[in-house]
Amino acid sequence: MEQVRVYAPATVANVACGFDIFGFAVDRPGDEVVLTKKDTPGIIISEITGDEGRLPLEVHKNTAGIAIQKYLEHIGRTDQGFTMALHKDMPLGSGLGSSAASAVAGVFAANELMGKPLSQKELLPFAMEGERVACGSAHADNVGPSLLGGFVIIRSYNPLDIIEIKVPEDLFATIVHPQVEVNTKDARSILEREIPLSKTIEQMGNVAGLTAGLLLSDYELISRSLEDVIIEPIRSILIPQFKEVKSAAMAAGALGCSISGSGPSLFALSRGLETAEKVAVAMTGAFKDAEIESEAYVSGINQRGPVVS
Amino acid sequence: MEQVRVYAPATVANVACGFDIFGFAVDRPGDEVVLTKKDTPGIIISEITGDEGRLPLEVHKNTAGIAIQKYLEHIGRTDQGFTMALHKDMPLGSGLGSSAASAVAGVFAANELMGKPLSQKELLPFAMEGERVACGSAHADNVGPSLLGGFVIIRSYNPLDIIEIKVPEDLFATIVHPQVEVNTKDARSILEREIPLSKTIEQMGNVAGLTAGLLLSDYELISRSLEDVIIEPIRSILIPQFKEVKSAAMAAGALGCSISGSGPSLFALSRGLETAEKVAVAMTGAFKDAEIESEAYVSGINQRGPVVS
Repeated sequence: MEQVRVYAPATVANVACGFDIFGFAVDRPGDEVVLTKKDTPGIIISEITGDEGRLPLEVHKNTAGIAIQKYLEHIGRTDQGFTMALHKDMPLGSGLGSSAASAVAGVFAANELMGKPLSQKELLPFAMEGERVACGSAHADNVGPSLLGGFVIIRSYNPLDIIEIKVPEDLFATIVHPQVEVNTKDARSILEREIPLSKTIEQMGNVAGLTAGLLLSDYELISRSLEDVIIEPIRSILIPQFKEVKSAAMAAGALGCSISGSGPSLFALSRGLETAEKVAVAMTGAFKDAEIESEAYVSGINQRGPVVS
Repeated sequence: MEQVRVYAPATVANVACGFDIFGFAVDRPGDEVVLTKKDTPGIIISEITGDEGRLPLEVHKNTAGIAIQKYLEHIGRTDQGFTMALHKDMPLGSGLGSSAASAVAGVFAANELMGKPLSQKELLPFAMEGERVACGSAHADNVGPSLLGGFVIIRSYNPLDIIEIKVPEDLFATIVHPQVEVNTKDARSILEREIPLSKTIEQMGNVAGLTAGLLLSDYELISRSLEDVIIEPIRSILIPQFKEVKSAAMAAGALGCSISGSGPSLFALSRGLETAEKVAVAMTGAFKDAEIESEAYVSGINQRGPVVS
């Protein structure tokens, strides 16, 4: 194989109570990488579309470029060169794991072209290196679900321990991206560094509840557990109309609604596609009430991760 | 029915990472209440055995007495009087939920004699009131599993939301009670009131991992998740020989080992009865190395809660 086209899914990290430890993948939006072998060593980024000219073409500044570079070093094949075209099919800085999806698509494509010497899960550290460039730290709550699909728990970062769990079949996600921007680094810097023990306990209860709710297909328990008492009260300040949009989602029947990643996108989970679509209408409507344009995506929980397209 | 004899099980609260939110019941030790109807209103505690004379006979100072009193008020039957005998079949102040077991046995016995107007789960608030007397606050991580059996998650205290989850069949608990004493109020007062966000995240990862490990019968995941980075490092200081005993448990094959409740008892979880028994020998041996006598109990996870005996 000389060329491969790979689509990697967007992801919702944090998932209310699960700051840095929960994430899930959706079917759309996502990022596409077209990777082509070339005869000489080195990676060249030939084009990036859909980024409004904002992403660097230099390999060492690009999440996918770095991920591929680290991968080649690991398998001892820096002699193999690639030309990469990157098509962003989702907004940058939206809280939907845009940089993670690019890194995952890139490293997955490279592994395909090299004859799959590594398993899908073994690609994770290289995609995380890409994330380090974008966010300043190597988080796994976007690259994990984008690479593996489904809902993941990052039990531990050191050593890395990622658990994939099944979700109820009738669980659907609504993601709404408003036309405002939040920088991930800013969104992290405003967080409190010390958490009251009482809030830690409350959050742990919801983390346990959400994990059990998903594994037991208990929608009521999922709904009760989709509460974030630590991060959301602070980060939601950066998102105009947050309260109104969340209220609209809940009134339309969502099981829960919170910030996707570090925002400004919001996600909601619902039982059934029909409800998830009603929730999308309600959420975009609530943004529109404040004259904020937004785009909505409705999908099941993506169980596949990246696909050759 | 004029008289009933009820045995309620001891419990392990906290369970490593799950401070205030996890607890499970064991088969032994436990507390026994013999409750007898009497013709006049009011509760009389006729005798308490096994407490070395340390527990008060006054109803309003006794966890079981208070639990029964609150229960009678709730069902509007304060006209019914009882005589209660309480047999402590476990050490006081051991971290095994001694006060909780008494409260549960008492209120369960009263409900039996009144013709079961309330369900087992509905008895929880009254048993918690008993706990308030003993601990100064109404925790549910001992009364919950003692009353309901099995492994419980307390997702929320306000409103109270308790989830019972199934555990793998081959999971066994070892509990070792050393002859030293820790006051629950002291053990709580030495805790930090503010937790670094990084430690909160680490703990949440283990909470999610333990919940998933139990539900998926993944013993390896249970083992990796039985880590407490918040409470154990502080409370273990109060328990002589803690590190040595924990190391002995792990070397003998335990999945994990930590403090039971607020100590000084330690618990370990193991796969298989045989390993749990080896772990008991190793733990008591490690206490003995420091000339500390200890008593060990090995049992499966109690799935029944209180029983009429």
